[in-house]
Amino acid sequence: MERIRTTEVATRVGKRVRVAGWLHSLRRMGGINFLVIRDGWGMLQAVAETENEIAALLPENVGVESIIAVEGLVISEPQAPGGVELHELSVEAISPIAELPPISLNKRKLNAQPGTLLDHAVVTNRHPLRRATLRLSAGMMAAFRDILTSRAFTEIQTPKIVAAATESGANVFKLDYFGRPAYLAQSPQLYKQIMVGVFERVFEVGPVFRAEPHDTTRHLNEYVSLDAEFGFIENHFTVMALLRDVIAHILQTFKEAYSSDLELLRVQMPDIPEQVPHIHFAEAQELILKLHKVDVRGEPDLSPQDERWLGEWAKQEFNSDFLYVTGYPMRKRPFYTYPDPQRPEYSNSFDLLFRGTELVTGGQRLHRYEDYIAALEKGQLSRETFEYYLEAFKYGMPPHGGFAIGSERFLMQLLGTQNVKLTTTFPRDMHRLVP
Amino acid sequence: MERIRTTEVATRVGKRVRVAGWLHSLRRMGGINFLVIRDGWGMLQAVAETENEIAALLPENVGVESIIAVEGLVISEPQAPGGVELHELSVEAISPIAELPPISLNKRKLNAQPGTLLDHAVVTNRHPLRRATLRLSAGMMAAFRDILTSRAFTEIQTPKIVAAATESGANVFKLDYFGRPAYLAQSPQLYKQIMVGVFERVFEVGPVFRAEPHDTTRHLNEYVSLDAEFGFIENHFTVMALLRDVIAHILQTFKEAYSSDLELLRVQMPDIPEQVPHIHFAEAQELILKLHKVDVRGEPDLSPQDERWLGEWAKQEFNSDFLYVTGYPMRKRPFYTYPDPQRPEYSNSFDLLFRGTELVTGGQRLHRYEDYIAALEKGQLSRETFEYYLEAFKYGMPPHGGFAIGSERFLMQLLGTQNVKLTTTFPRDMHRLVP
Repeated sequence: MERIRTTEVATRVGKRVRVAGWLHSLRRMGGINFLVIRDGWGMLQAVAETENEIAALLPENVGVESIIAVEGLVISEPQAPGGVELHELSVEAISPIAELPPISLNKRKLNAQPGTLLDHAVVTNRHPLRRATLRLSAGMMAAFRDILTSRAFTEIQTPKIVAAATESGANVFKLDYFGRPAYLAQSPQLYKQIMVGVFERVFEVGPVFRAEPHDTTRHLNEYVSLDAEFGFIENHFTVMALLRDVIAHILQTFKEAYSSDLELLRVQMPDIPEQVPHIHFAEAQELILKLHKVDVRGEPDLSPQDERWLGEWAKQEFNSDFLYVTGYPMRKRPFYTYPDPQRPEYSNSFDLLFRGTELVTGGQRLHRYEDYIAALEKGQLSRETFEYYLEAFKYGMPPHGGFAIGSERFLMQLLGTQNVKLTTTFPRDMHRLVP
Repeated sequence: MERIRTTEVATRVGKRVRVAGWLHSLRRMGGINFLVIRDGWGMLQAVAETENEIAALLPENVGVESIIAVEGLVISEPQAPGGVELHELSVEAISPIAELPPISLNKRKLNAQPGTLLDHAVVTNRHPLRRATLRLSAGMMAAFRDILTSRAFTEIQTPKIVAAATESGANVFKLDYFGRPAYLAQSPQLYKQIMVGVFERVFEVGPVFRAEPHDTTRHLNEYVSLDAEFGFIENHFTVMALLRDVIAHILQTFKEAYSSDLELLRVQMPDIPEQVPHIHFAEAQELILKLHKVDVRGEPDLSPQDERWLGEWAKQEFNSDFLYVTGYPMRKRPFYTYPDPQRPEYSNSFDLLFRGTELVTGGQRLHRYEDYIAALEKGQLSRETFEYYLEAFKYGMPPHGGFAIGSERFLMQLLGTQNVKLTTTFPRDMHRLVP
């Protein structure tokens, strides 16, 4: 009999089916035995009313996580997870496992410290809660690509090994490239801008690398960046409008296609307004003075506390979990940032705050060759290092801009995960290179 | 007036539209002027019958690659590229460019050596032929994801910075990870297998890194690998059946959605048979002896000449551009390879040849913990290095297998590109870190 997926069983009530997967749990209650089979998509309960039916699981070397196959009759059972269960079983042990996993996978909660969970991520990623998180991560990437493809963006893959150390001051990893120094790309920023010159609208989903020596629950040294960049914009508000639609599409996809994962993780899903409220950086500082009697005017950036206050204000004032802060001072933004034509000490850039924490950074970029020459000079950056990049602007670039979403951070904030490392398969931090 | 894309103009005959993009070319023929606007998707011809209409393009500093916008009346004109052209123009120079590009972008052919093309890839990627190639590269990634998603595969992103130097003998790049040695992943092989333990069916599209010191037209030191791995297979033939469908879907997608790119590049698209012919490695060697009087029996691998002969044979015998060679000797395959249960010196692995060249490698992997212990011992590989990986097998893994497609190599072979470096945006080779 051909095997079907556990998630397909509910459509086969009254028929015999074959499922296969991991022995998630086996409970023996007097004469009756409940086993749960976990496959790559879900779980299914099977009920054996005789010892004989589960004879294959009785040897001592057949423990949980053994690979098994189960045939049985599909019975509608509202009490069972998924509304169906199997009866009249025929069970086969395909690959028996004797050793108990280091952390129990069949409890609802994952009862272990983050360090232990991560040390054994190879196995703990099998837990339903971890799987739900990682499935949402896949869903986020797919939703990001879907909406941008539907808006005529072209996908690109840009090099991760690069010649120049840094463009934005982030710490970078150095490597030996056939005897020469090279670096791991901290972002696809320069290449995605160049590719606006080719396809106008581009996106990339790929790893970025930051050698930041911070060992916190908010840092990853390698993460997946969702990058978009596009031409013929009016200014940063064009970029903000696109980003709003991208976030809305990701949230919508989650609600429609990942509802059981969201339920399992008990996620409180936000709504994003048609028009995300926005406030200029300078006004935001004035607002903080007015509401909280704290004078942060003159500061070149917002503190986490400032962001929380602004988040609360957006919630009260607009009932929005999202808020754009625009016009960050030029002196804290990278050299390719486009200045506000009216107030050139401020920039045509923005941060998107979600529930009072920065989620996405973006903005309009310079597009004229001579502006780049001036910006590099002002920043005391070597023109030679950026010569290849400058070539894009020398030969014609439209006004353009874009943004980058840190996929793990977005997931962390959405799910309320305490540690960003638990939003990814195998995180890299200062002390962790394995698994 | 809202700007539309050049590829949308054909639906607006008789109406006035606005397009924007790069000034691809301007030909002045007596009183009549032909300009071609290139945007991110295509090109459009515009015809000015008076000097006045193109006044904005006449200053000396407005050369090709200037960013322009053109409004005009859409006229059906079968002779024009795309079947339409604009008349009664109103032209605006948005960002004028004085300097001529290093390589002419408006000739049908790209007349330059590969080295020059690559040195100036930032600009030469704008050429219609280069764009068509890069668009197909994006299409390949999307088609790969589409078919696997439709077969219930889950997308994963695995770390690119890894602790262990190598699993298959490839040369790897070494980097400084907070004072410790680390390496760039040569493939997601071990992680994708581990993730079969989580989601059963997984795929990844991502960069891989090979520090191979070969400076040829067939080598890239960083490339994009299309990886798939899945559980509950019968043997390597299950994997070969999936790979056949993946290749078929990529080819089908190209034919349906990328026909103009294929035409521009003059690609002879292959058909892939429902059943790709296959031959066992040992039989293949016997066949070569019989047909070509060359005795390669006892060789542990096929030479490029052997592969060409087999490709010719598949074409003659089965009229197929594709051929599976199965059962490569164990001694040339990595330690995780599953042996042929009948003839354990051969393996449950395969190569897919396309027009006589290896395109994809794949196979069944070991799935039992004790088999891994034995294989590591036999290969004199350190058990400690692979401890995290072994954890997957210790706690239950189904029979599984997979494959990896080098996306650039596939594109190269499909398009007949002479140099693999010309199938990617910004290639990395021994001497090239820029652009």
